[in-house]
Amino acid sequence: MQVAIIGLGLLGASLGMALRGKGVRRLGWTRRENIRRWAMDCDVIDETAETLPEILAGADIVIFAMPVPAIIRTIEEFAADFRPGSIVTDLGSVKSGVMAAGRTHLLPRGVHFIGGHPMAGTEKSGPESAFPTLYDNADVFLCPFPETPPEKLDALKSLWESLNTHVVTIACGEHDDLVAHTSHVLHILASALTLSILDGADAETIQRRFAGCATGFRDTSRIASSNPVMWREIIAENREYVLKAMADFDCRYEKFKQFIQSGDFDGFEKEFAAGKLLRDRWVDYKNKK
Amino acid sequence: MQVAIIGLGLLGASLGMALRGKGVRRLGWTRRENIRRWAMDCDVIDETAETLPEILAGADIVIFAMPVPAIIRTIEEFAADFRPGSIVTDLGSVKSGVMAAGRTHLLPRGVHFIGGHPMAGTEKSGPESAFPTLYDNADVFLCPFPETPPEKLDALKSLWESLNTHVVTIACGEHDDLVAHTSHVLHILASALTLSILDGADAETIQRRFAGCATGFRDTSRIASSNPVMWREIIAENREYVLKAMADFDCRYEKFKQFIQSGDFDGFEKEFAAGKLLRDRWVDYKNKK
Repeated sequence: MQVAIIGLGLLGASLGMALRGKGVRRLGWTRRENIRRWAMDCDVIDETAETLPEILAGADIVIFAMPVPAIIRTIEEFAADFRPGSIVTDLGSVKSGVMAAGRTHLLPRGVHFIGGHPMAGTEKSGPESAFPTLYDNADVFLCPFPETPPEKLDALKSLWESLNTHVVTIACGEHDDLVAHTSHVLHILASALTLSILDGADAETIQRRFAGCATGFRDTSRIASSNPVMWREIIAENREYVLKAMADFDCRYEKFKQFIQSGDFDGFEKEFAAGKLLRDRWVDYKNKK
Repeated sequence: MQVAIIGLGLLGASLGMALRGKGVRRLGWTRRENIRRWAMDCDVIDETAETLPEILAGADIVIFAMPVPAIIRTIEEFAADFRPGSIVTDLGSVKSGVMAAGRTHLLPRGVHFIGGHPMAGTEKSGPESAFPTLYDNADVFLCPFPETPPEKLDALKSLWESLNTHVVTIACGEHDDLVAHTSHVLHILASALTLSILDGADAETIQRRFAGCATGFRDTSRIASSNPVMWREIIAENREYVLKAMADFDCRYEKFKQFIQSGDFDGFEKEFAAGKLLRDRWVDYKNKK
């Protein structure tokens, strides 16, 4: 089985490292030649090529590990170069756009596109941030089409499960609504809170705030250090669901604000306790997996 | 030098552990007798007593490690039992209320109250969560009164510095404004986002969201697992500054929302990049300390 990883940044290079010794031959490609060489030298992949079509020709499973707009462009541009019968998937954070490209350009050619999204990542990016356990114990969402042959879905599922991940199949719109809530809005909140603390006050105040931020700030704001171009692309791609999830956040945030404004601290405590209960339950759920 | 720690929860017990071997005699007191016994058995303190006045009588420095309302009540109730000439301080998250109690009840008796607040803690609470390095490398805010004798402030500063902390003196109102921004609002955000993700949807959606939350959620929401009673007290105590800091957050959050609503993703990227720059700068600042 030949697995082609297209894009060798944090996600792609980590996937190459994770697939080492898993009984597949790892083909790898990225635009930059020096990164391809690095990936070969460091045993991140087993084989590369000068051009993308050479890689696509030999692959049983193609995995796009690139930003969503680049995945869509590449599917459009190289549609004729995918091997009929092969499986094509991706690691993108938003599924509607890539699924539409797959339906239009790949399905009619007998290429089995299945959207994919492993819930794994860090605030860093680039191949230099890659590590082999990035996907360990992660949930992986797969979005098949109604016409996806079950054996193709099973093959992709098996590949992911060989990396100690938990595969969940989900409809594309449900996925995009889900990640708007569980990930995308969190990045906006982390960035807005960082700016509200460390920007827009006089120099002396800002200096004190640098000292006054501790572990609470460190963790709450961590993902504000994520790549701005990448997050621009994700939020733009998932705009409608993100605005809907922001509205859900607004409801709970305004409720807290009203408790504080009106001095209803019984209400505040009850609401905060409900949040603690759910968050503690989530930690238990993750620990049991 | 005899240092009395009043309250032996996460902060008080950790302080006892940290002061071990630092050349001071650690007196300790808490309401519950079994915790006093535990603290003696585990070398968290060197000495305890049945009643608070016995402890206060022997202390050169008294450190209140209790919730703010309890500190204020204790100062009022036991005002006559503090030793004239002794230093009294606290670890409370909000300073205006305790400073007012200190000015009214202690200063007139020649007892030197100096507000204190180490920027240290976790989402856990109770003596079972204590550990000796909790204060390591933390910033500690001290709020003296204009009439505080410099040698008393220096003595307290030295004690904190012996624990590898960085002391910053600050006016009480400035402190409360600062922590509203760097800590209090973050707890409200963490709780509101947890509730907006894990509450208020159908069971199937909630189940998917439990799976869909990953490390981004884990860190952004961590402090939502904090003690609801403690946070009720802190927010109630610092209500005006918290509402002001929430308004600052609202400005930055609404700016993001408008970029997304209007499709101005150049604006979004620029704003997110500004947040990343500041957060990365803060990480560098902390690492250099």
